[in-house]
Amino acid sequence: MSARTSGPVRVVGSGLLGTSIGLGLSAVGVDVLLADASPSALALAVDYGAGRQAEPGSRAALVVVAVPPDRVVEVVAAELAAHPEALVTDVASVKAAPLEALRAAGADLGRYLGSHPMAGRERSGPLAARADLFLGRPWVITPHAGTTTEQLTTLEGLALDLGATPVLLEAERHDEAVALVSHAPQLVASLVAARLLTAPAPALGLAGQGVRDVTRIAASDPALWVQILSANAAQVFPVLTALRDDLDAVLTALASPTAPGAPRALADALAAGNAGVARIPGKHGTDLTTTALTVLVDDTPGQLAHLLTEIGELGVNLEDLRLEHSPGAPVGIVEVQVAPEAAAALEADLAARGWRVAG
Amino acid sequence: MSARTSGPVRVVGSGLLGTSIGLGLSAVGVDVLLADASPSALALAVDYGAGRQAEPGSRAALVVVAVPPDRVVEVVAAELAAHPEALVTDVASVKAAPLEALRAAGADLGRYLGSHPMAGRERSGPLAARADLFLGRPWVITPHAGTTTEQLTTLEGLALDLGATPVLLEAERHDEAVALVSHAPQLVASLVAARLLTAPAPALGLAGQGVRDVTRIAASDPALWVQILSANAAQVFPVLTALRDDLDAVLTALASPTAPGAPRALADALAAGNAGVARIPGKHGTDLTTTALTVLVDDTPGQLAHLLTEIGELGVNLEDLRLEHSPGAPVGIVEVQVAPEAAAALEADLAARGWRVAG
Repeated sequence: MSARTSGPVRVVGSGLLGTSIGLGLSAVGVDVLLADASPSALALAVDYGAGRQAEPGSRAALVVVAVPPDRVVEVVAAELAAHPEALVTDVASVKAAPLEALRAAGADLGRYLGSHPMAGRERSGPLAARADLFLGRPWVITPHAGTTTEQLTTLEGLALDLGATPVLLEAERHDEAVALVSHAPQLVASLVAARLLTAPAPALGLAGQGVRDVTRIAASDPALWVQILSANAAQVFPVLTALRDDLDAVLTALASPTAPGAPRALADALAAGNAGVARIPGKHGTDLTTTALTVLVDDTPGQLAHLLTEIGELGVNLEDLRLEHSPGAPVGIVEVQVAPEAAAALEADLAARGWRVAG
Repeated sequence: MSARTSGPVRVVGSGLLGTSIGLGLSAVGVDVLLADASPSALALAVDYGAGRQAEPGSRAALVVVAVPPDRVVEVVAAELAAHPEALVTDVASVKAAPLEALRAAGADLGRYLGSHPMAGRERSGPLAARADLFLGRPWVITPHAGTTTEQLTTLEGLALDLGATPVLLEAERHDEAVALVSHAPQLVASLVAARLLTAPAPALGLAGQGVRDVTRIAASDPALWVQILSANAAQVFPVLTALRDDLDAVLTALASPTAPGAPRALADALAAGNAGVARIPGKHGTDLTTTALTVLVDDTPGQLAHLLTEIGELGVNLEDLRLEHSPGAPVGIVEVQVAPEAAAALEADLAARGWRVAG
């Protein structure tokens, strides 16, 4: 398969994203020129196979700026000036403020087209990179008034070459969207996790899957997130303000839980949560509803594999799978999500094969 | 294996918990007498094998009250009166308020000992029950001044017969703990999910694993949770008030993200989240740290099984497993958590067997 992207592509920044882009493009035969303010990061990325070091004055048709959020505007402006024939994009997770700052700085917006691959890891740096980091992920491209069809095609080709799914959104719509589905949840997860700081040990011992799920992303890097949240503060603020208002209504109800209207206020908050979570698309981007089966698996090597082998033999595809362990238990609880029409037969077949299974 | 529990055990309430207790005790040979205000629920539980219908006047040494939270006090008081020689327990998720209400009602607290198995499902009713619902879960027992060692031993035996791990906590400490690790996270998950109600469809299309995890438990039953939150309002209120104060500090920072102190306020909130989530014990109840490997798996039946079979062949036990799908992607991303000392060899072995794997 030949690449859609014409090289050389200049990638500025050899962190997780820049190095992953370099690895992915190199894997499909695109010539990648790497640059980084840090010689050691650059050397690591080159050694890792993400491309070759950019020579001074080397030309590129496409420049991808993959630097920390607080340096994006400065570096994009410099790249636009240094490569007067190149299309320049960036991969930062906030899009409207940089566009405005570039406009205010008099940058040549006719050659700038922002983008945001929705991919990341808990780890950072060039050695955390992987060629398939973007596989199957949305890659948002944010056209503005000066964007041409050819430029869109170029960035769509970049996304497709890296296995991502291109999504077109205006910068403001993108920033609103990520405030809702990424930035606000990140902050709230941190706030819930922060409450555990002073929890007595026995309380932590009662922590189940619920609080683990709610707080998982609270482990993210504060330095990076301060930059993201600062850059998108205008969009995150109204989301969290609305959440604070809802929280105040809940607090009023909890202060006098038997007062008229209090149970209704709690029920409304919980029902709104039911309706909101139901709007998140399923794994294939649709509202596919799946059916859960719960199976007990001994906590020893190979047992989960044995279960999934049998499910595969029965010709059933897993839509999702969740493993749950409890402190001290010798077994794991596996929840498999399958197509509703397959669930009853699978439950019966697994039970017939001796699995402890419940629908 | 003979049961620790001496029958007959009277189980009042044939919902998810009562029927599961009946199934579990019946499975180890204990005689279970079932009662329920609803004849149809009772008949279902009996047909399901959870026990036999309690005859009027039948005696029991142990009574387990498994009714909705808002009926616990009334039913426990009635059972104490009707069974003057029995130890009576309940399984409600809030413990201090019922104890006080029973004391105020002049109940014979010398024969009441509250408990709370930390188990549940999204589904409810007798047909959602399973004998192994409590397997490996904490079963909190809440002694008070009138509790005897013999009574503690009886309830510990009940928990152990059902595969649960007994945990002793005073009622107030229990309620504080579940407010922190269950009730407050539940409400916050609902509040985040409620923000998605008005989200445009393209924003929902960008939803990744983070927001899915944060909002998963927002799908829980509002009617049940209104009862739980109302009963434990005194403990949930201070947790959520502290969270609201933290949220206000974040909102102040977001309102003027470049003001002096604003980045620091955001960083503090995120760092506190880091520290809080790190306090949640690992799956075996310890702070075991695991190492993640990421493997790409084709989204077809049997592929995940094939991977896990090979991991099993390599003698490595999975500490955790997370499946991630992206809309439209033909592959799934599997993150396996293994013991740190096993990770490097497993990564090399899997790569040698042709898997696309990254550490």
